[in-house]
Amino acid sequence: MTTGLDFTLLHTDGAARRGRLDTAHGAIDTPAFMPVGTAATVKAMTPDAVRATGAQIVLGNTYHLMLRPGAERVARLGGLHRFMDWPGPILTDSGGFQVMSLAELRKITEAGVRFRSHVDGSYHDLSPERAMEIQDLLDSTITMVLDECTPFPATEKQAAESMRLSMRWAARCREAFRDRPGYGLFGIVQGGVYDDLRAESVDALANIGFDGYAIGGLAVGEGQETMFRVLEATTPRLPADRPRYLMGVGKPADIVGAVLRGVDMFDCVLPTRSGRTGQAFTRRGQVNLRNARHRDDPRPLDADCACPTCRVHSRAYLHHLVQAKEVLGLTLLTWHNLHYYQDLMAGLRDAISAGAAADFAAAFAAGQSQGDIEEL
Amino acid sequence: MTTGLDFTLLHTDGAARRGRLDTAHGAIDTPAFMPVGTAATVKAMTPDAVRATGAQIVLGNTYHLMLRPGAERVARLGGLHRFMDWPGPILTDSGGFQVMSLAELRKITEAGVRFRSHVDGSYHDLSPERAMEIQDLLDSTITMVLDECTPFPATEKQAAESMRLSMRWAARCREAFRDRPGYGLFGIVQGGVYDDLRAESVDALANIGFDGYAIGGLAVGEGQETMFRVLEATTPRLPADRPRYLMGVGKPADIVGAVLRGVDMFDCVLPTRSGRTGQAFTRRGQVNLRNARHRDDPRPLDADCACPTCRVHSRAYLHHLVQAKEVLGLTLLTWHNLHYYQDLMAGLRDAISAGAAADFAAAFAAGQSQGDIEEL
Repeated sequence: MTTGLDFTLLHTDGAARRGRLDTAHGAIDTPAFMPVGTAATVKAMTPDAVRATGAQIVLGNTYHLMLRPGAERVARLGGLHRFMDWPGPILTDSGGFQVMSLAELRKITEAGVRFRSHVDGSYHDLSPERAMEIQDLLDSTITMVLDECTPFPATEKQAAESMRLSMRWAARCREAFRDRPGYGLFGIVQGGVYDDLRAESVDALANIGFDGYAIGGLAVGEGQETMFRVLEATTPRLPADRPRYLMGVGKPADIVGAVLRGVDMFDCVLPTRSGRTGQAFTRRGQVNLRNARHRDDPRPLDADCACPTCRVHSRAYLHHLVQAKEVLGLTLLTWHNLHYYQDLMAGLRDAISAGAAADFAAAFAAGQSQGDIEEL
Repeated sequence: MTTGLDFTLLHTDGAARRGRLDTAHGAIDTPAFMPVGTAATVKAMTPDAVRATGAQIVLGNTYHLMLRPGAERVARLGGLHRFMDWPGPILTDSGGFQVMSLAELRKITEAGVRFRSHVDGSYHDLSPERAMEIQDLLDSTITMVLDECTPFPATEKQAAESMRLSMRWAARCREAFRDRPGYGLFGIVQGGVYDDLRAESVDALANIGFDGYAIGGLAVGEGQETMFRVLEATTPRLPADRPRYLMGVGKPADIVGAVLRGVDMFDCVLPTRSGRTGQAFTRRGQVNLRNARHRDDPRPLDADCACPTCRVHSRAYLHHLVQAKEVLGLTLLTWHNLHYYQDLMAGLRDAISAGAAADFAAAFAAGQSQGDIEEL
């Protein structure tokens, strides 16, 4: 196959990899974390603020964008990069996951999925071909194949049927995808928690040939131990010269563990969503800013953090903003959390270059359990 | 009397004045607009963003701050400037207006007002002396006297009794206020729509002696014509060497008209609150971003505006953010509106220096009626 995306593996340390993915919209240093910009905005952040956290790529949700403002409209307005003022790389999911979790009256057939919009109740069809067309209209840098995210729990038979449907859809997506230099299409490995099915899925996708390989259907309730086991059974089988993306993951500890198991890319709503509920991530674990113990605390959230929230504002002020439900509280906590995630990825990249990924993971775990800091 | 605030009158043009007010926290060019930072934040804006609009002073609401996080707490945390990261001048109202409009079970006596918090139902007393103490704890640059905002409509007898109570409270505030260089106390003219009562109030306050004079009890439903008439009867009587502040005003046209009638300072929630409801102010009148006509419009809100919202984002994108109830929509519209208000003040200041205030007002009115643009 030809590939539109150059991926350079710079260092390996055990299974962990440091690399660079070059795209039409700029380079991405991996392992990379992609903030989620669901509806053409990373919630509560200006594009400049997102850039300032160190993010090089953001994610857009096809499901949300196809319903509002509509893919054809985004195309008329110059594409998603211009629409949301993010000239850097954008990865869009295929819409499949949100159709399953958000839409009403969905019906899956071999052809694709028909569903009703949660916004206005209108009917929509999403086929592999339409998913490619929509992401092309959005001008997505990295397009994801349409798949069915296998529910958890699922029997082996259910997981097998669901995975095989996704593999047939993947082949149709590859066929329909419009190849261009600097743009790419990622396949998605399914197969639930069944190692044999994951292996079958990897082989099916590798046989079709993609610019990158995502691992889907994890972080859906199976637990970290099972997730790591599935990764260990999956990543060694994936083409080594292509980036690997673990979809929808996750907590900082999930990311560290997945990087050690050979994953290169991540996305998750946790840093943005948690910011909106008063939760902050720090080197010493999670901090709940709603807690009254912060009321008179003049210290920053994390004295070692270089983000604007920590450089300028006290815990007492953040507590006040969260309690008063002030918008600035969302922005400041989201900013800190995204900065924390980007810092974590930079630390992992440096550790891999230095052959010290395992040490980094151990130091990370020790910090998290140090406990400034209460549980969520 | 001694005064803690230097006010320099730089130019006059008819009744309109250009000046500079020097404070312990920096200078304010007048006529000035003060964004409202109710609960220690200008809603949906970072302090850097507020500064970037050109604002030199912000307003804090004593009522909100005394209830949450509490004046003593703010003092322990280093004062309001440090708490909210606004090292520039801050004016705090006395809390009187919000007690009347927001608190429950309020009771006014000669001593002061007792009320129940709308936040947690707790009882609080606010006297002239306590109002001074609270604003001192907040480290307010400009402190306002406690007054009773006379309701509209009010009979002349009601307006007179209310105003005279406010004048007795004003004398107690002056007595209790802690004078310091660079800090000041403003009296508040009351008297409803009755010119004689306004004159009596001005004389009472001037006799006590304040660092500045506010005009209260307007923009409460009396209409622009009546408001302008009251201003014409009031401002010529006020000490010319002290700044004049029209509280809670207003729409751009109200501000232009009030500047022509000798007012130097303004505050209003309109640019921030309107930003949160999809309303934008422009040279060509108000724009409602909810309107579907913006759906496919690639143009900026105002091509002549230098704010980040107009430099970068399309009407189509702003419409999308407003429709999707995205936080970024609040931020971008608030930013634009505050920028617009600051631009308007800068234009007024330049026009006064050039002896062209009346021309500026005429050009402003012509622009507003040009109609890109639908009504609110």
